[in-house]
Amino acid sequence: MANYFSTSFTLGILGGGQLGKMMLYDTRKFDIKTHVMDPNPDAPSKIAADFFETGDLMDYNQVLQLGRKVDVLTFEIESVNVEALETLEKEGKKVFPSSATLKKIQNKGVQKQFYKTHQIPTADFQLFNSKADLNEAIIRKEVSFPFVWKSLTGGYDGKGVSVIKKQEDLIPLPDVACMREELVDFKNELAVIVARNVAGEIKTYPVVEMEFHPTANQVEYVLSPARIDDAVAQKARDLAMKVSSSFEHVGLLAVEMFQTSEDEVLVNEVAPRPHNSGHFSIEASYTNQFEQHLRAILDLPLGATEQKCAAVMVNLVGEANHQGNVFYENMEEIMRLPGVTPHIYGKRETRPFRKMGHVSIIGENIEKARSLAQDVKEKIKVISR
Amino acid sequence: MANYFSTSFTLGILGGGQLGKMMLYDTRKFDIKTHVMDPNPDAPSKIAADFFETGDLMDYNQVLQLGRKVDVLTFEIESVNVEALETLEKEGKKVFPSSATLKKIQNKGVQKQFYKTHQIPTADFQLFNSKADLNEAIIRKEVSFPFVWKSLTGGYDGKGVSVIKKQEDLIPLPDVACMREELVDFKNELAVIVARNVAGEIKTYPVVEMEFHPTANQVEYVLSPARIDDAVAQKARDLAMKVSSSFEHVGLLAVEMFQTSEDEVLVNEVAPRPHNSGHFSIEASYTNQFEQHLRAILDLPLGATEQKCAAVMVNLVGEANHQGNVFYENMEEIMRLPGVTPHIYGKRETRPFRKMGHVSIIGENIEKARSLAQDVKEKIKVISR
Repeated sequence: MANYFSTSFTLGILGGGQLGKMMLYDTRKFDIKTHVMDPNPDAPSKIAADFFETGDLMDYNQVLQLGRKVDVLTFEIESVNVEALETLEKEGKKVFPSSATLKKIQNKGVQKQFYKTHQIPTADFQLFNSKADLNEAIIRKEVSFPFVWKSLTGGYDGKGVSVIKKQEDLIPLPDVACMREELVDFKNELAVIVARNVAGEIKTYPVVEMEFHPTANQVEYVLSPARIDDAVAQKARDLAMKVSSSFEHVGLLAVEMFQTSEDEVLVNEVAPRPHNSGHFSIEASYTNQFEQHLRAILDLPLGATEQKCAAVMVNLVGEANHQGNVFYENMEEIMRLPGVTPHIYGKRETRPFRKMGHVSIIGENIEKARSLAQDVKEKIKVISR
Repeated sequence: MANYFSTSFTLGILGGGQLGKMMLYDTRKFDIKTHVMDPNPDAPSKIAADFFETGDLMDYNQVLQLGRKVDVLTFEIESVNVEALETLEKEGKKVFPSSATLKKIQNKGVQKQFYKTHQIPTADFQLFNSKADLNEAIIRKEVSFPFVWKSLTGGYDGKGVSVIKKQEDLIPLPDVACMREELVDFKNELAVIVARNVAGEIKTYPVVEMEFHPTANQVEYVLSPARIDDAVAQKARDLAMKVSSSFEHVGLLAVEMFQTSEDEVLVNEVAPRPHNSGHFSIEASYTNQFEQHLRAILDLPLGATEQKCAAVMVNLVGEANHQGNVFYENMEEIMRLPGVTPHIYGKRETRPFRKMGHVSIIGENIEKARSLAQDVKEKIKVISR
């Protein structure tokens, strides 16, 4: 084993957003040197990295140069130049997750095809090279309404996804390679964080549940553990392990899933990194997801994934109609509630729906935590003033 | 309330050792700007502070200049120039804990006298201006053996404390102002972390127990909660609150105590800052001690102090006969154990008995955690190679 602790060993991290920032708490805890690259000179990870440089994550040469300066390279965002990662791997650099895994995940068409090949249950789909091809398939009645349209690349946080009820709905969409996906009749949206280290040791976190706003199509609460039957939970965790092993993934993989009305579990999509749905682990798990990612990519033993308590996570997003210097209204009120911890990502400026932070709410059981989370959600507002 | 989060508000921290380093995880979490001063250019807090400068913490002008650059000033070590803090307070700067509190605590004679005045139970004592005065008191038979000798200033981590069984034992000791303290017949050494914010809100953490090595006079394990009767625990927490209120303390106060053979609880000494005996809180408490210190000095509501699970803390100190570049032997083995988290402070060089880090061990109950802690203690070695 390499000696990572208080040595000159350096971990490179592509991307310096909030996920990178939170990972740095754990590199500092272990005293592991880091070198971070992000295009934004004021990225949240700028502070607490040993070295920080600005650079374009999609630029072959800049990623290559960064990679050559470090001992192990990882990323906190999928939009990085994968060819540079391939070159680095050929040069003998350790890159985790690997370029091969990332390539399969970056393109949603390849990702879906991968599930099909590996008999991983997922919603039915068809791929199209262009909007014209999709329109023709509709005309030929090979596609029926409603369905889910997804761009094959570049989607993030709901962008690149649209529910299509009639052909006209396609008009505003971009002309890109895309897929038609079956609109799944689901009871719950679930997610499982699965960690797999270099040696192949694998562990899953308890299943989390995404609770949506009753009218707005927006995740309001992430609950851990999910309020589902043990049998469904076990099925979801088994499936997450199968996905991780099939990808021969190294690092964290967040597997988003649907629980159908018949209690089938279908893989929706994956993210090969720490994930919003795993933030609960900072306060509630024996090992938080960021430390677990480090353990996995550095081939250390994985930490226990059991929970110390129940947890609910609420995202702090900018209020509509507010743009400018951020102010967290009623922060003091929510900090008065027991087991409430705000995480502020460090973005000076708020914009409508911008992810500015999150709040962890822990409690003895999920009912108590959920009830407290509602208080938090109703009180805290991310505004400008 | 001031707006601390993602603004230009700046917290100054005197001292950049491991306590400051761990406090910075929480200033980062809240996105609160920090300005740290420490004499060591490679201090553990150098990384993750927004601004870091080297400076002598005992130098009036350097402390004054640092204080003038920040909005609120705190410290992570007691050895700072208290006159500079007084000047800053006169200039209207918020300094927490206050210079008045720190002055009472820096001198152990003044501290003991304070307990007596405030009817806070503590071991019997006598103060002496010099070694000669103490020797004369012995000759006059005003002092009997055995007793505990303590230097009134400058003691830290066992330095400046000595058990005196006969007059000859005094010979190697320095000629300084000192005290004779009764040697207490105690069952347990306990500690309570108490937090008090600017508004006077006050909360205690559960009582922790320091378990000593059966032969070497060294703390081996810090257990939380302590394995003591509820009545004794309540007495200890009440006493800690009384101490904090008497000092009108703002911030964290670690109150070290003796549980006597008659189940009396006596205050031994206090530290006006986050403390080694509170490290368990990072993994085990609803609010960790560093976040709690920030809440207290920024006059935010205090966080819940309940525990999510039981915890034992083991210090990582340099092995005897090892000096040089540090290597953590069997780190991988201890990381394989469930609920085990190493904290590496970031000192490149180990020396015999140097505090290099600590390990948190959490579990469902204190017996399980204690048993796991023993495994950890037996495996991990801080050596040079």
